Amino acid sequence: MSEIPLSHPRYASLLTREKVVLGVDEGITGLPGLVAQGRGEAFDYFLGERTTLPGDDAERAAVAMLLLAERPVLSVNGNVAALVPQGMVDLANKIGAPLEVNIFYRTEERVKNIADLLRRSGAKTVYGEDPDAHVPGLDHERAKACRGGVYDADVVLVPLEDGDRCEALVNMGKKVITVDLNPLSRTAKTATVTIVDNAVRALPNMVELVDEMIGLSREELEAVLEGYENEAVLRRSVALMIEHLRG
Amino acid sequence: MSEIPLSHPRYASLLTREKVVLGVDEGITGLPGLVAQGRGEAFDYFLGERTTLPGDDAERAAVAMLLLAERPVLSVNGNVAALVPQGMVDLANKIGAPLEVNIFYRTEERVKNIADLLRRSGAKTVYGEDPDAHVPGLDHERAKACRGGVYDADVVLVPLEDGDRCEALVNMGKKVITVDLNPLSRTAKTATVTIVDNAVRALPNMVELVDEMIGLSREELEAVLEGYENEAVLRRSVALMIEHLRG
Repeated sequence: MSEIPLSHPRYASLLTREKVVLGVDEGITGLPGLVAQGRGEAFDYFLGERTTLPGDDAERAAVAMLLLAERPVLSVNGNVAALVPQGMVDLANKIGAPLEVNIFYRTEERVKNIADLLRRSGAKTVYGEDPDAHVPGLDHERAKACRGGVYDADVVLVPLEDGDRCEALVNMGKKVITVDLNPLSRTAKTATVTIVDNAVRALPNMVELVDEMIGLSREELEAVLEGYENEAVLRRSVALMIEHLRG
Repeated sequence: MSEIPLSHPRYASLLTREKVVLGVDEGITGLPGLVAQGRGEAFDYFLGERTTLPGDDAERAAVAMLLLAERPVLSVNGNVAALVPQGMVDLANKIGAPLEVNIFYRTEERVKNIADLLRRSGAKTVYGEDPDAHVPGLDHERAKACRGGVYDADVVLVPLEDGDRCEALVNMGKKVITVDLNPLSRTAKTATVTIVDNAVRALPNMVELVDEMIGLSREELEAVLEGYENEAVLRRSVALMIEHLRG
């Protein structure tokens, strides 16, 4: 890669972009993942590149749902691994959940690279290298999942997930939490809790929220969830984007 | 690359994405260009993935400006080469303009690959491999330009251009036409004529518009330009995006 000229006015933004490109060089992010990252950048631009109030509300609901779960599992794909590996591992460790590697364009090498990265970041249990189950309703390669991991989970966090797979997981009866900067996407509309925020901001915020909420009683956590309405959160996110376009 | 499952509901969109990825494999598109492509996809989604009325107005103004130009030049970067090489060459040939390869992350190999692709597509004159001038106000590598090409042009078409370079070309006194799906970008605000449309649709449309407008007199072409207001076109494009978000 060439150097970004320091004189360039968008230096910081281009530097972030280079970090995702680095994920490709390290065999973690797939090339189509770079395009997906660009889509996210554009939606984040509309959001004002900050965690919004509806984003924070969704993150609180997500943490309540994870803390109430019997078998929570955190799914990691190539972009998530390139962007916030430590945030995913910290969240997994704080709530005692395993991680599972699930990538859109599956190659065994890339799955292993991501699993290794998560273990180097302190992950205790990482599924995904030896799938032994299938999510019904998906194409063979995309369906691969692990018993003890995503396949058996009651609550799954699948950030930056494809709409197809999100829907298949919901159809299995799971509660699905996603992180998706496009509030109009199929993933956003299908998930149980949709966090319209950049994963780079959402995960560290959720790790902090676990510290804040871990002392709450079961009833208090359930009250957080009862007060949460995913459709309203999506509508509020769209309204913020319209406001930003107007400004 | 893995195969996209035919059963996937976003098959067509993913296939387009794979075409840009192919540009990387062929040494035409740079990795950061994939991220830029993703950003464009998101803005196109807001536009409804069609050529809008303000987009068509800008394309007409751009064609009038190119037909009135003394020394028009068409600039081609990695993404433009991957997306619409034939459209750029057809437009260049119809208006008798040279092409010039200008890429953000310059490597001589990639410049040569793009120039070869344009020549294979029927281009008559392709500048860019042997730059002999500099655009003032830009970092050394980014400033490279060719006499007889962009450096001496009175009107330049620079689709998917960086804001920095667009501004530097305007500062040289050139009339700058760009294609940019983000009506709020610095490029969009700086250019003389901003086509808020996908390059994949804009270029073939402009080629058709040349056929339609080439018989117009100088006065008629000037009248098209006099009736054109770039700021209004940008405002109308933003309004369409807001409308789409509301719908």
